[in-house]
Amino acid sequence: MERNENLENKRHSLAHLLAAAVLELYPEAKNTIGPAIDNGFYYDFDNLKISDADLPKIEKKMRELLPSWTKFFHKEVSPEEAREHFRTNSYKLELIEELEKTAEKITFYTCGNFTDLCRGGHVENPSKDIKSDSWKLSRIAGAYWRGDEKNKMLTRVYGLAFETEKELTDYEKQLAEAEKNDHRKLGQQLEIFMFDEDVGPGLPLWLPNGVIIIEELEKLARETENIAGYQRVRTPHIAKESMYKKSGHLPYYEGGMFPPMEYEGGKYYLKAMNCPPHHKIFAVKPRSYRDLPLRLAEYGALYRHEKSGELFGLMRARMIQMNDAHIYCTEEQFANEFRAVNEMYLKYFKIFGIKKYVMRFSTHDPKKLGQKFVNEPILWKKTEDMVRQVLVESKIPFEEVANEAAFYGPKIDVQVWCAIGREFTLATNQVDFAVPKRFGLVYTDKDNKEKTPLCIHRAPLGTHERFIGFLIEHLAGAFPLWLSPIQVKILPIGEAHLTFAEEVEKTLRAGGIRAELDESNETLGKKVRAVKLQKIPYWLVIGDKEISADKVTLESRVQGNLGQISVAELLQKFQKEITERR
Amino acid sequence: MERNENLENKRHSLAHLLAAAVLELYPEAKNTIGPAIDNGFYYDFDNLKISDADLPKIEKKMRELLPSWTKFFHKEVSPEEAREHFRTNSYKLELIEELEKTAEKITFYTCGNFTDLCRGGHVENPSKDIKSDSWKLSRIAGAYWRGDEKNKMLTRVYGLAFETEKELTDYEKQLAEAEKNDHRKLGQQLEIFMFDEDVGPGLPLWLPNGVIIIEELEKLARETENIAGYQRVRTPHIAKESMYKKSGHLPYYEGGMFPPMEYEGGKYYLKAMNCPPHHKIFAVKPRSYRDLPLRLAEYGALYRHEKSGELFGLMRARMIQMNDAHIYCTEEQFANEFRAVNEMYLKYFKIFGIKKYVMRFSTHDPKKLGQKFVNEPILWKKTEDMVRQVLVESKIPFEEVANEAAFYGPKIDVQVWCAIGREFTLATNQVDFAVPKRFGLVYTDKDNKEKTPLCIHRAPLGTHERFIGFLIEHLAGAFPLWLSPIQVKILPIGEAHLTFAEEVEKTLRAGGIRAELDESNETLGKKVRAVKLQKIPYWLVIGDKEISADKVTLESRVQGNLGQISVAELLQKFQKEITERR
Repeated sequence: MERNENLENKRHSLAHLLAAAVLELYPEAKNTIGPAIDNGFYYDFDNLKISDADLPKIEKKMRELLPSWTKFFHKEVSPEEAREHFRTNSYKLELIEELEKTAEKITFYTCGNFTDLCRGGHVENPSKDIKSDSWKLSRIAGAYWRGDEKNKMLTRVYGLAFETEKELTDYEKQLAEAEKNDHRKLGQQLEIFMFDEDVGPGLPLWLPNGVIIIEELEKLARETENIAGYQRVRTPHIAKESMYKKSGHLPYYEGGMFPPMEYEGGKYYLKAMNCPPHHKIFAVKPRSYRDLPLRLAEYGALYRHEKSGELFGLMRARMIQMNDAHIYCTEEQFANEFRAVNEMYLKYFKIFGIKKYVMRFSTHDPKKLGQKFVNEPILWKKTEDMVRQVLVESKIPFEEVANEAAFYGPKIDVQVWCAIGREFTLATNQVDFAVPKRFGLVYTDKDNKEKTPLCIHRAPLGTHERFIGFLIEHLAGAFPLWLSPIQVKILPIGEAHLTFAEEVEKTLRAGGIRAELDESNETLGKKVRAVKLQKIPYWLVIGDKEISADKVTLESRVQGNLGQISVAELLQKFQKEITERR
Repeated sequence: MERNENLENKRHSLAHLLAAAVLELYPEAKNTIGPAIDNGFYYDFDNLKISDADLPKIEKKMRELLPSWTKFFHKEVSPEEAREHFRTNSYKLELIEELEKTAEKITFYTCGNFTDLCRGGHVENPSKDIKSDSWKLSRIAGAYWRGDEKNKMLTRVYGLAFETEKELTDYEKQLAEAEKNDHRKLGQQLEIFMFDEDVGPGLPLWLPNGVIIIEELEKLARETENIAGYQRVRTPHIAKESMYKKSGHLPYYEGGMFPPMEYEGGKYYLKAMNCPPHHKIFAVKPRSYRDLPLRLAEYGALYRHEKSGELFGLMRARMIQMNDAHIYCTEEQFANEFRAVNEMYLKYFKIFGIKKYVMRFSTHDPKKLGQKFVNEPILWKKTEDMVRQVLVESKIPFEEVANEAAFYGPKIDVQVWCAIGREFTLATNQVDFAVPKRFGLVYTDKDNKEKTPLCIHRAPLGTHERFIGFLIEHLAGAFPLWLSPIQVKILPIGEAHLTFAEEVEKTLRAGGIRAELDESNETLGKKVRAVKLQKIPYWLVIGDKEISADKVTLESRVQGNLGQISVAELLQKFQKEITERR
């Protein structure tokens, strides 16, 4: 993920060009700011009433202007000069005032007839350096001035820009694919979840198909965690203020929490994290080194305040169910525990066919000990060394970022890419050597002394919300057999085949298969189309031939027609595929 | 459950006698009220500072007075006379004022030298009718005047009273047994749950052993409900005010709910019932008669306000996880659906060895249609008739209570008795023909008309909290194999037997058995005592003899020594016992 400075300069230059074109076409508009972004650029305008239908006109104007944009001139100006130039643009005046306050240089950049307040970063000669087929305007959106919902809503014009035409069209193809697989669209089509305005934004209701997926994921987690020696706990979704003061969530994380309920003369908060009640469970009885590592797991439902503008289907919700666990261990046990957590991630990646992933390893900055980072220099060094060593040994791709650790210890963010190349942050792993102390957690060590355990926070499957959202897009809604809400659909060709089909359904269901019978009077072709639309992994066709052979014809979403098979064999095949989670 | 009037009169007479004795011994005390209760009587006093140690003295005084109590005299008095008599007792004055307001007769009852404001209900001749060995004082407690925590705390003296000495001693034995099996005590000893003051009263945290029981119960419910055609959903624990206004919980049930959170300019409430979000899921798409019955199940966590004085371990908690489901059906389907729900209850009673139970069937009062009961006379009659018929046909013991139905339909309260004879209300079944209408729920019937479905609310396993509390007391903490947190403990006699024991543990765990190895250096006797204290159903002894025979010696909590058995056979035996939930 190297920064491509040339491409960024090109995108930034195009943002200027966009503003120039808009101001020529709509002189009453006020240009505010316009940066380069990941896939191109944008510019935000006030007093600009346009729709997507106006984009071709603006783009045409940009292409008209481009040949005359041969050089960016820059000039340092005094605050007075700057104010004079932008006297009718309150947004620029606000920016100028800030620059003045922080004593930063104020610079103007001019190209063609257009001058902007700008820090620089452009191509030398736009008319030559920007290939006309490598960029385009893409869409319009609303955006608050400076991203703050208390400010005025502006009109944002987006553009796409890449090095070459091929890169642009590839990106657009990926975008179209992503739109088709959008988890919000597929989630509704496949009846996985819903929202309701009487319940509230960001609070998903899981429909029966969604709960099947949830329960399969929980079963996987339970099995995996059982083998790995975890114990499961369950804690209330609310707790008193004193709990969150003890943990430090109040006041440090208050903005991420729901407001309190006033109850019995005190305040009760919705749980935003599972750690505080897990710490309480650690402390329920005296612990000895023999009890460690103690691994407490809970697929806990958490409530977090997210700005309404940032809610996004399942990807950013206000209720999240997290594959959470806290591992309490001694310093000696830490490396092994961390390695085991890592292996669990890799195991899951394999199960879900996640081929591209990277771990972002955030470490502390020794200069900020005691301020941004808890003052435990030896522990920082020790745990960071151990984490790094495990990452290197296990050959997991990772990048190390200094100065981005949590207050209480190093952390790892897990980034994965779905099948069509979109990136998701799935989960966070954190080492914690501060909060257990705040809760007074201790164990008696071999030397009979009381010591504070280390704590690892981990959630390899992230939250149901984000993980299932990711899976929907990753799999384009086509879940593997073990996760599929309906695993096999039984399609009798005519009415004469219904009794046999019912028998097949009964046998499969008794064998634990989620089989469903299509009893409608539709043609086989129509039945098969419905099955494909529902993305069901297998279907069985039953007609005269099948009945006389006492078999069924098996068809697969992926492999097509697999020929005739007896129901007993089929059941075995399915059960094997499900157990192996292929 | 007939009312034994004679026994009640005796208990009420003893309450008078108690007040007489207290006022002779503590003239500064103020007597307030003293009724007969289920197992005896009590009397509440203000300005009485005593402890349990003073009870013998008071009881002695009662026995001194009793021979002189040969007749209760009663007299109607004017409010003025009454006020004059009780001029120094503000509690009695308050009662007199109320009687005056409601224009009720005011009566005094006198026996011996003691006169009380009273409605009557005594034995004729206490000195003769009350056998001296059939009653005793039992304990002291605090109680708010009129049960309202805003009022002053009074001193309550309790007494036990029965017809005969044998009944009294039987009751005391049962009480001692119940105390030993108190779920709060056993729940702590067996590490099933805990409370924490930073979390809040009435909010249990479930420890690993408790979660194993919870998950086994959920597995049972899931299996049972799958077979019965239920679908599972999952809904947020909070929702907007508008949801609960639509359902009518606001304002009618507001007192049972937690106070709201002020969020984004509106109010959000913790979910106290699962029905409103389930209704929303019903309405997510158009439904036809073909989709009915639709059975939506959720083991949902609910939050309810309970007065802090009424909280009682798991039996009355503020967070409860309910085995909830809502069945949406047509009128024609109702009887079958109700019958199936009933059968599910009976199935569960059998699994849990619940031998004594009764269903309290609450019906409407036709005179109160449109007031206390929704005005649907035909539906009331129809559904009540159907419920009654199902109860009679299935030979379930039931009692019918008129005028106690819910506003929106008839209901059934399920009462069960645990092994030592204590009574529990486990669950409620309700028919609902009003709320689906409030939510505008409809299905398209065969005649193409839109109709409102009936809704059955049911929760056969009640809540985890109350059900597990009940199970702990019912089973005295000795869970059957399938529910037991640790299913088998492996006890090697000496160090030489550890390797073999570890192999056995591995094999059993791989077979899905919750096996645990005792690696301590304790004697076998001590190890066995620990196992018994933990109420583990089975343990294996492994010594030289076992290793040379390649077997283990199996011992059972119930059946004692079961002799040597191979590990493969043992695994089969356990798996069978678990699958059958014996």
